[in-house]
Amino acid sequence: MLKALKKKQKRKEKDLSGLFNPESVAVIGASHSELKLGGVVLKNLLRLKRRIRIFPVNPKFPRLMGIKAYPSVEGIKGKIDLAIIIRPAPETPSILEALTGKASCALVVSAGFAEAGQAGLQDEVLRTARKGGIILMGPNCMGVYNATTGLDTFILPPERLPRPRAGGTAIVTQSGAVLSLLFEGMAKTDMGVSITAHYGNAADIDESDIYEYLENDAGTEAVICYLESVRDGRRFIKRAKALSEKKPLIILKAGKGAAGQAAAFSHTGRLAGAYEVFHSVLAQYGIFEACDFEDLMDGALALSTQWKDLKHKNKNRNKNKKTSKGNRVLVLTNGGGAGVLASDECTRQGFEQPEIPPANLENFRKIFPPFYGMGNPFDLTAQGSDRDYLYILRELGDGLSFFDGFIIIALTAVTGITPALAGMLADFKKRTGRPMVLHTGQDEAGRELGREARKAGIPSFDTPERAVRALGHLLSW
Amino acid sequence: MLKALKKKQKRKEKDLSGLFNPESVAVIGASHSELKLGGVVLKNLLRLKRRIRIFPVNPKFPRLMGIKAYPSVEGIKGKIDLAIIIRPAPETPSILEALTGKASCALVVSAGFAEAGQAGLQDEVLRTARKGGIILMGPNCMGVYNATTGLDTFILPPERLPRPRAGGTAIVTQSGAVLSLLFEGMAKTDMGVSITAHYGNAADIDESDIYEYLENDAGTEAVICYLESVRDGRRFIKRAKALSEKKPLIILKAGKGAAGQAAAFSHTGRLAGAYEVFHSVLAQYGIFEACDFEDLMDGALALSTQWKDLKHKNKNRNKNKKTSKGNRVLVLTNGGGAGVLASDECTRQGFEQPEIPPANLENFRKIFPPFYGMGNPFDLTAQGSDRDYLYILRELGDGLSFFDGFIIIALTAVTGITPALAGMLADFKKRTGRPMVLHTGQDEAGRELGREARKAGIPSFDTPERAVRALGHLLSW
Repeated sequence: MLKALKKKQKRKEKDLSGLFNPESVAVIGASHSELKLGGVVLKNLLRLKRRIRIFPVNPKFPRLMGIKAYPSVEGIKGKIDLAIIIRPAPETPSILEALTGKASCALVVSAGFAEAGQAGLQDEVLRTARKGGIILMGPNCMGVYNATTGLDTFILPPERLPRPRAGGTAIVTQSGAVLSLLFEGMAKTDMGVSITAHYGNAADIDESDIYEYLENDAGTEAVICYLESVRDGRRFIKRAKALSEKKPLIILKAGKGAAGQAAAFSHTGRLAGAYEVFHSVLAQYGIFEACDFEDLMDGALALSTQWKDLKHKNKNRNKNKKTSKGNRVLVLTNGGGAGVLASDECTRQGFEQPEIPPANLENFRKIFPPFYGMGNPFDLTAQGSDRDYLYILRELGDGLSFFDGFIIIALTAVTGITPALAGMLADFKKRTGRPMVLHTGQDEAGRELGREARKAGIPSFDTPERAVRALGHLLSW
Repeated sequence: MLKALKKKQKRKEKDLSGLFNPESVAVIGASHSELKLGGVVLKNLLRLKRRIRIFPVNPKFPRLMGIKAYPSVEGIKGKIDLAIIIRPAPETPSILEALTGKASCALVVSAGFAEAGQAGLQDEVLRTARKGGIILMGPNCMGVYNATTGLDTFILPPERLPRPRAGGTAIVTQSGAVLSLLFEGMAKTDMGVSITAHYGNAADIDESDIYEYLENDAGTEAVICYLESVRDGRRFIKRAKALSEKKPLIILKAGKGAAGQAAAFSHTGRLAGAYEVFHSVLAQYGIFEACDFEDLMDGALALSTQWKDLKHKNKNRNKNKKTSKGNRVLVLTNGGGAGVLASDECTRQGFEQPEIPPANLENFRKIFPPFYGMGNPFDLTAQGSDRDYLYILRELGDGLSFFDGFIIIALTAVTGITPALAGMLADFKKRTGRPMVLHTGQDEAGRELGREARKAGIPSFDTPERAVRALGHLLSW
């Protein structure tokens, strides 16, 4: 039995379907009370959208939350795709021993391993799991939230950690705190999540394994990853490269400086490694890198909404290296100062802002009032209206070879700008396939325009500079 | 009469009280309809909290919005502190001529001057105003919002451009678009505004004049400034330095690169100048500089909430140059990953993160569970509670000489963190006078904690990195 499992594991590398899509789940340390972690997890599992077998394990109760409970792992008959272990760290090896031959994947929620100086205990856990042919996630992790199926192993109830809606963006994170920030950030811009994996200390399964699974996960269109450390650099590069050739992968590498690296070690017990090496590898293989948390969220929003449009124009791109498809941008604004700030950020990003082509300019001079600033930024002033934006983009449609990307600034404090602008912008973008980002105000009208734009596939940002930086990610796809 | 006015102007430099605090206001181009700019301005003025004399000028109506209207400027008897001109650009010189001898300040709202290639017309307007002894704001500007008195010359109604609450932070901006972004940003963090000045093309009054006024404005405690260009560098430095010795002044200089400079010119018709010179001058005189819009808002929030606490410790600071008071910070977190991200930003900012002093560490080891990460970041893990933060800060209170500033990260997705933490943090900060910033989640509990913290004088930020960058401003005060 053991041999067969091992063989199976070898043949298929690590088959993570038991982890992300189990048919049967055991909860070792399940509880009757939602005040306890084992109760939260059980309750979350009972919320599943489709019926799977659930085996709560607790020697004190014959039933838990309305279903049969088991006094020990030994009492469970049948196969366990996923065993969730919510017991004190020192008990973990013996639990894994008991799971041998029964379980194919185990999720160790408890902390108190390498991150707390108990590297020996973590090694023992890994050895026991390997010996038992059990794929291990964690320890020190929250595990999996699969928004498509509703599978939810988190130790936090939705009231404390609201889950984002189901959608196409996967999250791979070493940190639970960052996971909660990511969820909040996604909810704010109505991004949808496919699979979320918080893999903690990564004794066995690490980011590379999860990348490999996501590569072929039909529900995942883009991947956000928060990383502190990489164990097997060669494998990481191979898997990250393979994944990012199929769908955009954006990585925030934390633990860059000495202080951050020390913090990362005490956090997950893994060495963060030299950041410079990591950075140059990502750049070499065209994998997106975020410089901080905000850039991660903004980049993910831009990439998840527009990568499909961009894909077709890049059909023939070099498979080994994503080269920039151009850096010439147009800033089209109805606020002078916002246009200047966007231009400053364009300069910092190394973008060019070419002049409006003379033929187009001649036409613009005929129909627009003389106080419009017809340079780049093109400043419609507070008099600008929806149809001005549309007219300019349509007119430039013929001379599209002049611009690689578009930064639209539409402040709603003035009259003339309505939520209908979102649809107009989206039409243009769909027709041309050029990346486009929006900056609008945070007043009520601005928020509505931003929402409409995001729905239509134009990511919207709170400041001019953030919009420009997000465009930077799109231009490098 | 003319001579007398000129003499008065010379004696008192520019007396801007007529602009910011007028007893009588004429609106040239007033309208009966709020669909017209002249109607919006009149309506805004009628909302004033105290009675002042208002003279609407419009040849077509004997009364406007319930008060007597005047067919022309000539018909107005008595002194006009402030004349607001909302007529097409070419009419402005003759209106200013008619105002000569009657008005002490004029606000030219209309665009169509230097920013639109009509430098000659702008010169004529300036000459006419100077000849008439009239202090001129604009052209191409929205003018003044004095939240304390309610004076409001803006051409946008509050429904489209909600005004922030009254408070202690002044806004000086060359751009109306940026003004609307600033208002939205202030409302988001409940910052209060004292005086807002949008001075547009700055033909006469410029940032230096406004700085001089704000220096002695009792209601203003901190100043946010968005600048594209400076005309008289020497005077700017003198006034900025004088202002920033009394209250924090944070400046966002836009038009940094070639594209931004061109945009700035077409926006206000003034040359933006070499950014590097500007930057080094600000640094030399210890005037705060923001690197982008978000940094401007975050820095302003930090400085406006904490500068008074910081002031006392800096009583003896060098008046000519604000030197950094230290760069040793403690990151105290209940989220490992968030602590790592904060540490990375600390490294980028050049902060040090010293180890916990051994005597304190010994005490912490006695009372905290072994899985707490007792380094810097100090990681309370998801088990951390309000009282843990309090205990650590109190304990370190004796060894305060080890840390110059505190970055508190308190994520609310876990139990143990409550809004009561805000008060505890504020008590510590008040007692020690050390700068402190907070990063918390954006879930409901996090937003409440953030609000409570801001009320108690601890600025709260949406991402770990933004909190660290904001602390950077406080540490350089």
